[in-house]
Amino acid sequence: MRRGANPVTLEDCTMVIFGGTGDLTKRKLAPALFNLHIEGKLPPGFSMIGVGRKEKSSNQYRSELAKAISEHSFETWDEEAWAPLAEKIDYLQADIEEPASYPRIREYIAEHNTSRNPLGNELYYLAVSPHLFPPLAENLGLEKTSHTGSFTQGWRRVMIEKPFGSNLETARSLNKALCATFDDQNIYRIDHYLGKEMLHNILVVRFINTVFEPLWNNTYIDNVQITVAENEGIGNRGSYYDRTGAMRDMIQSHLLQMLAVVAMEPPAKASLDEVINNKLSLISAVRLWPENGPARNVIFGQYEGYNQENDVKENSTTETYVALKLAIDNSRWRGVPFYLRTGKLLQEKQARVTIQFKKPAGHHSAAISAGLDVENGNLLNLLTLKMQPSEGIVFQFNIKKPASVDEIVPATMDFCQQCAFQINSPEAYELLIADAIKGEKARFSSWEEIEKAWQLIDGIYECYGLSGLKSHLYKPGTWGPAEAEDMLSAQGLQWWV
Amino acid sequence: MRRGANPVTLEDCTMVIFGGTGDLTKRKLAPALFNLHIEGKLPPGFSMIGVGRKEKSSNQYRSELAKAISEHSFETWDEEAWAPLAEKIDYLQADIEEPASYPRIREYIAEHNTSRNPLGNELYYLAVSPHLFPPLAENLGLEKTSHTGSFTQGWRRVMIEKPFGSNLETARSLNKALCATFDDQNIYRIDHYLGKEMLHNILVVRFINTVFEPLWNNTYIDNVQITVAENEGIGNRGSYYDRTGAMRDMIQSHLLQMLAVVAMEPPAKASLDEVINNKLSLISAVRLWPENGPARNVIFGQYEGYNQENDVKENSTTETYVALKLAIDNSRWRGVPFYLRTGKLLQEKQARVTIQFKKPAGHHSAAISAGLDVENGNLLNLLTLKMQPSEGIVFQFNIKKPASVDEIVPATMDFCQQCAFQINSPEAYELLIADAIKGEKARFSSWEEIEKAWQLIDGIYECYGLSGLKSHLYKPGTWGPAEAEDMLSAQGLQWWV
Repeated sequence: MRRGANPVTLEDCTMVIFGGTGDLTKRKLAPALFNLHIEGKLPPGFSMIGVGRKEKSSNQYRSELAKAISEHSFETWDEEAWAPLAEKIDYLQADIEEPASYPRIREYIAEHNTSRNPLGNELYYLAVSPHLFPPLAENLGLEKTSHTGSFTQGWRRVMIEKPFGSNLETARSLNKALCATFDDQNIYRIDHYLGKEMLHNILVVRFINTVFEPLWNNTYIDNVQITVAENEGIGNRGSYYDRTGAMRDMIQSHLLQMLAVVAMEPPAKASLDEVINNKLSLISAVRLWPENGPARNVIFGQYEGYNQENDVKENSTTETYVALKLAIDNSRWRGVPFYLRTGKLLQEKQARVTIQFKKPAGHHSAAISAGLDVENGNLLNLLTLKMQPSEGIVFQFNIKKPASVDEIVPATMDFCQQCAFQINSPEAYELLIADAIKGEKARFSSWEEIEKAWQLIDGIYECYGLSGLKSHLYKPGTWGPAEAEDMLSAQGLQWWV
Repeated sequence: MRRGANPVTLEDCTMVIFGGTGDLTKRKLAPALFNLHIEGKLPPGFSMIGVGRKEKSSNQYRSELAKAISEHSFETWDEEAWAPLAEKIDYLQADIEEPASYPRIREYIAEHNTSRNPLGNELYYLAVSPHLFPPLAENLGLEKTSHTGSFTQGWRRVMIEKPFGSNLETARSLNKALCATFDDQNIYRIDHYLGKEMLHNILVVRFINTVFEPLWNNTYIDNVQITVAENEGIGNRGSYYDRTGAMRDMIQSHLLQMLAVVAMEPPAKASLDEVINNKLSLISAVRLWPENGPARNVIFGQYEGYNQENDVKENSTTETYVALKLAIDNSRWRGVPFYLRTGKLLQEKQARVTIQFKKPAGHHSAAISAGLDVENGNLLNLLTLKMQPSEGIVFQFNIKKPASVDEIVPATMDFCQQCAFQINSPEAYELLIADAIKGEKARFSSWEEIEKAWQLIDGIYECYGLSGLKSHLYKPGTWGPAEAEDMLSAQGLQWWV
């Protein structure tokens, strides 16, 4: 574990990607590896094995990856730069749904280690369908390939994508299967929002700025809004999505993680454990807003036409939109509502956190003295941390309108991250793979966090009994059902876009 | 006195400008009146009398003002708009250095009142050389023209330009002369920096923004810097300037007023009296920084070539530059240095206040936990309120450098007032004349403030005994003498430009 300014040693290792010919590998993982390679962030003795069902040669596989990288990486394609990385990549054909494949997989990796990976460090990436997670973990375990301290030397780490279960029960089963094979400390549960630059940046904005840190509490903050809006529908994911819905697909994972980073207590010691523990404490303290009854604090929506999507049940009540009013039950946040919303086919693709500060108390008089008309003024202070589609920070405060004696108007300062630095932010996967190679876990979700998040989500579903919650229809291209607007306007508030 | 949102009645009045053909009238006062007229901010029964030494007709005078306005007003010249204002303007030839002129002046105004100013409200503007202030006030008094409640009805107000004396003693004499003729509440002592939009805006930024008000004290602020730099020399003002110097010309007035607005306690009641009283309390609490001895806390400079300027003594030691380290002796500001500097022939024309916040304490650990290298980072938070040459607000805070895992970099947000509103800020004189007509005194200096400011300045001179302080030479076009840089660098600080 990295502490303070201690240098990190990048140990040589082999990355084994199950689902090596799949979409995730081609669109995200291979470009991320290429970028890390270009930037000199892979260990010198790095190698990679792609495992797939189809028969093909390693050379053929390398060409496929090259094509995918040239299409999806933000780095300019560079044949010469690619060549030394390509040489380190092999392809293994195997049907991972078939237990009989595993001895061969183990044997292949063992040979690979002898020639290319003498330290024996292995990083597994499960880029496969969620239903394959448990059997894959189990079979890797049965082959005794993956326990630290087993007959293979070096570390064994596993990276696993969401969804981590579909409720508390299935999440627990999956975790049990993984833990039978890997130590918890070697399980890297990905929430790729945690890998995003801007989310990490929230920590800096909060803790490395004297002007924000003292204000980050219920004395100064009126409410917090977290929006993750998508402008596309469910595409060809109907079968998965219709069983899942926006609450389980997005709130349980990304939005609660964003909430945890925005609202957690500052770590008192310079240790990663503190970040992880404080995020866990925060998630444990999240409640549905305790007033007005749950039906006012959870709004489900479904876009018109959802029932006609492929693989969706005809009378499906699955929500494609959810807005929540949450409370955090600790002294820092008591009384501050956290409004979360996410949905499909909304007006625009957007992910952002907005901190709405309270109106200034008691010092209006200074402005009134100076002849300013504060009653008619818009006295908002807003800090918006934008993550998608572009990254940036927007700060809205108040000034006197020039040439007026008594009018206060909002002034907006916009800091655009890309504009200022003229570089693309690294892909989330790039950071996450680099972290896993280093053994840094701060950007990953702990099991306890996932467990607490599922308890919260399951609890919300239980609020409504077996019949479930009505999904209000909304028109594609809008900001969701009117009922979600009402949730805020009833408090004299509005969703910030 | 205006309170809260009560409407202000603009009472008809006559403005009598002594020095009606002078530079100030042509460049500032006439354009300000024209703009106020265009904007409908003059009372309907407003009239104006320009008093000058030269013989000319009112029509000739109006033409001269029209020409001056078309050259100096930011409003587009508009003959048709001008006509109704021109009709309200008259010219009176009189030698105000000659006591015998005054009965004629009084008679002229009395006739004017009968035809044009039935309420009898009179606003005197002393746009003349400072040595004429005392005799002018005295003569107006002898004619019993100006006491409220005397045989003329209506109010009598007087606006007077700086310099208000050249030290405590001469300031007291001048004030005595004015007070023999006018009640103190009818004396409007102009510091035109107080009329500037942006300075007034400081009040809004401080008090109408939740994100700044709680931080405005010695817990969060490391130091405050106030710079008023001029890029021109003393021009043809050698005779005045050589007797005066930068400390008396600029610090005693403009910079201490800026300091007062930045640092005063928030008014607790919605009353103008509180603003005035709080500024006074603040100025009363200003001290030279109590440590290191005065020679380290006052740096005088003189630009090379100053001795060759017209009307400057050959071996003059007068300072054309001064940098001060001041303390404010109250609980809000104890321990916070206020660095003030002003000078002639500096690198650029610039007036600004910079609030340098302390580095974040105790929460570095959060960043270190997150893998950020805070030791090498630049952790400054700066809030800069720009007044000249352009108005605006700049806010510098810290973000994580995109694509880096462990580098913190400053991000700068710049709000340009003119850019956002596409209008020119009104001239200071426009606001000040409008205030005097309304009877609003918040933007003017009180006698007590001026007195306290002179006590401070005289005290600083006394620190150095009779021999005065050495002025360090500096090259024109630089930021002043190196000794002023040393004053900050000795504390690990720098002047912000």
